[in-house]
Amino acid sequence: MTQILRRKAKIIKVGNIYIGGINPVAIQSMLKNKTAEVERSIRQIKQLELSGCEIVRVAIKDIADAKAIKKIKQKINIPVAADIHFNWRLAIEAIDNGADKIRLNPGNIYKRREIKEIVEALKLNKIPLRIGVNSGSLRRLNSKSLSVPDSLVTSALNYVKVIEGLKFYDIVLSLKASNVLETIEAYRKIARRCEYPLHLGLTATGSPQAGMIKSAIALGVLLLEGIGDTIRVSLTEKPQKEVKVARAILETLGLRCFNHQIISCPTCGRCEVDLIRLVKELDNRLSAVSCQLSAKPLKIAVMGCVVNGPGEAKEADLGIAFGKKDALLFKEGKAVRKISSGRCVDALLKEISALNSLAN
Amino acid sequence: MTQILRRKAKIIKVGNIYIGGINPVAIQSMLKNKTAEVERSIRQIKQLELSGCEIVRVAIKDIADAKAIKKIKQKINIPVAADIHFNWRLAIEAIDNGADKIRLNPGNIYKRREIKEIVEALKLNKIPLRIGVNSGSLRRLNSKSLSVPDSLVTSALNYVKVIEGLKFYDIVLSLKASNVLETIEAYRKIARRCEYPLHLGLTATGSPQAGMIKSAIALGVLLLEGIGDTIRVSLTEKPQKEVKVARAILETLGLRCFNHQIISCPTCGRCEVDLIRLVKELDNRLSAVSCQLSAKPLKIAVMGCVVNGPGEAKEADLGIAFGKKDALLFKEGKAVRKISSGRCVDALLKEISALNSLAN
Repeated sequence: MTQILRRKAKIIKVGNIYIGGINPVAIQSMLKNKTAEVERSIRQIKQLELSGCEIVRVAIKDIADAKAIKKIKQKINIPVAADIHFNWRLAIEAIDNGADKIRLNPGNIYKRREIKEIVEALKLNKIPLRIGVNSGSLRRLNSKSLSVPDSLVTSALNYVKVIEGLKFYDIVLSLKASNVLETIEAYRKIARRCEYPLHLGLTATGSPQAGMIKSAIALGVLLLEGIGDTIRVSLTEKPQKEVKVARAILETLGLRCFNHQIISCPTCGRCEVDLIRLVKELDNRLSAVSCQLSAKPLKIAVMGCVVNGPGEAKEADLGIAFGKKDALLFKEGKAVRKISSGRCVDALLKEISALNSLAN
Repeated sequence: MTQILRRKAKIIKVGNIYIGGINPVAIQSMLKNKTAEVERSIRQIKQLELSGCEIVRVAIKDIADAKAIKKIKQKINIPVAADIHFNWRLAIEAIDNGADKIRLNPGNIYKRREIKEIVEALKLNKIPLRIGVNSGSLRRLNSKSLSVPDSLVTSALNYVKVIEGLKFYDIVLSLKASNVLETIEAYRKIARRCEYPLHLGLTATGSPQAGMIKSAIALGVLLLEGIGDTIRVSLTEKPQKEVKVARAILETLGLRCFNHQIISCPTCGRCEVDLIRLVKELDNRLSAVSCQLSAKPLKIAVMGCVVNGPGEAKEADLGIAFGKKDALLFKEGKAVRKISSGRCVDALLKEISALNSLAN
């Protein structure tokens, strides 16, 4: 199997999560309600934890948001990154209230004196900083002398220089544009010019489906090149969906493994069963029986006809290949028995649970 | 803007569509019902045409399917590719009934005598051939001496040699695996070893969402490298969805342009309006008002707060950036006026139609 060779990035600790080096690419999302609505925030973060979010970012728009971090952190298990814009005092307040990471935007907090205050607080509390540059809030982009990717890179590296000048090095970088090609170019350039871990994402995407596709392409291209230590899929959608898509991207590339994987054909005029419905049912029931940590994630093929069916089914851990209404069940490369279409999802789930208990 | 430099592929004609060279990357899908059900087939192909499908493939499982091509072609406008497996006589029958392209699978039609008969018919009718190799139906893959990508490449090139030996060169190639990394590697290798146009796709994906993400990554990576002249997104879903995803992939990469593009932020605790709902409404209403061929496709930004809002809105053709409940409307980089959240979708659609009629 083709393997991805990851860029060697400095290791940064965010709460109980390590970013960079050979650590798993961490999945982030962001709270969509006002942070100061403590009960709602806790509820949303709990849902995010369940869906697999590993770091949650929260917007700090005022002192109430910053103070809410302390209360929220008592009830949740994942680290909290505080998103700060315009007002440096909010960063100090967030740090004082237990934020595990601060994100600053060079586009709106750039006075040396203010940065110095924040960095002192970061040092004291031993928490890292993300320098998050966005195409939508670049300073001096109006000059148009630099391309968007070059503006993002220049802005990030200038800020890094200031922070390093203050002898602080626990830095993560992000360079997000709304355009996929510009985002890819910016990350490729910065990856060659520093050793800090990179947080990948697009800044603004569009409809959920367009966002999913843009994110899959941008993050997919970069991760395949070994670039990226933590990711956030930005969708104009509920945040759990962002995590689901992030997981699917990492699984597709073989960088993380969260659940059993279904391989299914698109069906065509050859297929004589309702494969679309069968795969949907299997997918839903598998999501409920998420694979235990101790179990080996399985590859499960569900194929509609004899053209590629037996081949894919044999290569998978478990597979069914339909002939007419009946399917042939394959286990670890061998044809085992015939099953009817009506019973195939049950049969597959039974075999999965048997293989899982063997692995334990 | 970053531009994609496309691999120079030989130009092949499929009905009224040209594949290869600098021709637009053509979008394909496949009929999911039995081809011989003529009325159903025509209905599905009509829907595919409306959604933007440019070449439709149909499975030819028996003589009835092959004969149906003639009747179907009387009622549709896009070229038909006939998918042939196992039985070479079905290829002849499909060609005699007006197929615009034949797809053969080297895994199940490989006798020289049979190939020769098919190629003679292709020459006589001046239609091209796709050599479609799939990981699920590779011959001799069981030997395991070659990796999946190398097996795909070897199988395709051996078949090409046989076809070229018969003095036939109107060839398109596809090398599909179910694994994204293997598929990417196979296409990268074949791209360097021949000049035939490449049809990109994965052979079997999984649940629709996983399929979308796998396809976006595999096709995105390859197209960004200039590889790929026609694509088919295989989803275990209705075929119109395949076309919608294919279009979004090509639009994301700037390779094709079908409609106005929405840029929207994911929203966070800073946003004080229901942006998710607003973007959904705008997206739905824009899909209905698809951009006329003569009109310039617009970039429309819908942003939830002042951090990146004004920046992205200024860079777009049209944009709205929310402060509190009111938004500032931007047109061609300039702030124009305030609008309330309740009226912003209407206002944007009005501006779009005004800009479109200016362009005409």
